[in-house]
Amino acid sequence: MKKKIKKVNTAILIIGNEILSGRTQDKNIAFISNWLNSKCGISVNEVRIIPDDQKTIIDTILSLSKKFKYVFTTGGIGPTHDDITAQSVSKAFKVKYEFHKEAYSILEKYYGKKKFNDGRRKMAKMPSGAKLIYNPSSGAPGFIIKNVFSLPGVPSILNSMIDNCKKYLTKGSKIYSKTVNLYTVESHISKKLGAIQSKYKKYVEIGSYPFFRLGKIGVSIVSRSTSRSYLKKVEKDLTNLAFEQEIKIFRI
Amino acid sequence: MKKKIKKVNTAILIIGNEILSGRTQDKNIAFISNWLNSKCGISVNEVRIIPDDQKTIIDTILSLSKKFKYVFTTGGIGPTHDDITAQSVSKAFKVKYEFHKEAYSILEKYYGKKKFNDGRRKMAKMPSGAKLIYNPSSGAPGFIIKNVFSLPGVPSILNSMIDNCKKYLTKGSKIYSKTVNLYTVESHISKKLGAIQSKYKKYVEIGSYPFFRLGKIGVSIVSRSTSRSYLKKVEKDLTNLAFEQEIKIFRI
Repeated sequence: MKKKIKKVNTAILIIGNEILSGRTQDKNIAFISNWLNSKCGISVNEVRIIPDDQKTIIDTILSLSKKFKYVFTTGGIGPTHDDITAQSVSKAFKVKYEFHKEAYSILEKYYGKKKFNDGRRKMAKMPSGAKLIYNPSSGAPGFIIKNVFSLPGVPSILNSMIDNCKKYLTKGSKIYSKTVNLYTVESHISKKLGAIQSKYKKYVEIGSYPFFRLGKIGVSIVSRSTSRSYLKKVEKDLTNLAFEQEIKIFRI
Repeated sequence: MKKKIKKVNTAILIIGNEILSGRTQDKNIAFISNWLNSKCGISVNEVRIIPDDQKTIIDTILSLSKKFKYVFTTGGIGPTHDDITAQSVSKAFKVKYEFHKEAYSILEKYYGKKKFNDGRRKMAKMPSGAKLIYNPSSGAPGFIIKNVFSLPGVPSILNSMIDNCKKYLTKGSKIYSKTVNLYTVESHISKKLGAIQSKYKKYVEIGSYPFFRLGKIGVSIVSRSTSRSYLKKVEKDLTNLAFEQEIKIFRI
């Protein structure tokens, strides 16, 4: 019997003027996507980066949460005036923006009663009914409401929290990938590579990426599939292609 | 007389499974955004990253090109089967996807007649009526159709081409930025910082970004404005805030 393939799709929404302006190089997209892929068999199908603007956040949350099974947001959950993700998500889903009892007590404990000022208290305000994403590195939790997971923007903190999202996610079929590097240029193999992709189009997604490294020119052929046996078939066809055209090859 | 501020908004559309899957760390967003900001006074207001899927590309191109003055796409203009940006943009705008005479002759000259194979010829196919974005590093040009600028995905090639977009862009008012680093934590200054932002909300956009570097904890306050005098006013207020709260400060 054929194993049923379960695809789970997701969007990432990066909220932050600093990424849009180019001041800050985003590192969260690749991290979240790799984590979802490897730990949960979940693919990222769309990413958006938007400014710290309430209307834009509300509209984008509503649109992405309808279109995808999950939405991961990053950024805008800190203590300052430009941190407006929690308010905006509350408005999007028409729920109250209020103190979350458990988050409040976590933060009060973390900072101590005397140092638990207004800015810090703000981080305990969330959409009513939100579940918490615990934060082992700096106290302030993320939150989940409906299918939206809100995480902080600072990569080291986000990285330390993401495993706490796992129990809330429906896993998809694991996606395997295989990279074959060919010491050639894309245009030499594009026709035959296209034929290989057509042959396996139902099962394997093949990407072609030129590289220039260590003084050598080459093409990385990346195959992705839920089936390891189809990946092997593609690898064999690529090996034959390299052999026929006398192209040097190495595998990762 | 007050100088009229001219805002020009733009979207960046990254086309490529390799970015979505997390295999490749995007570097083009920050580069393009910084270039548009510093060279043309143009702000990026939205970024999307989407897969190499024709329908998704068509829908997104149509939506972004209506919403923004310019759209910059990266990726999908090479010789392989997964390079479908040019076809998709043609379909989006209902124009023919055909050989561009000048691009064909540039590429034929670049590779030499004998080596100008099918894959390479594919890179001369573009939406009918497209203008070229010349490519000093690897021959194959990008193209402009309506308000959409299509560039390659390989950062080094994109970087070498982008200046050739300049003459087609309407410049906006230059956006200046000033960073003040405060050796404190966000929650200590969030209330007063919020008040400063409210005071100048019409003229200056203030962002607050915690940092952890060289063993020190701090907050970068980034102010952005088309007016240098308002930036100076914000800087003065931040200096006062630091003085009142005995916070060490350094400026960039």
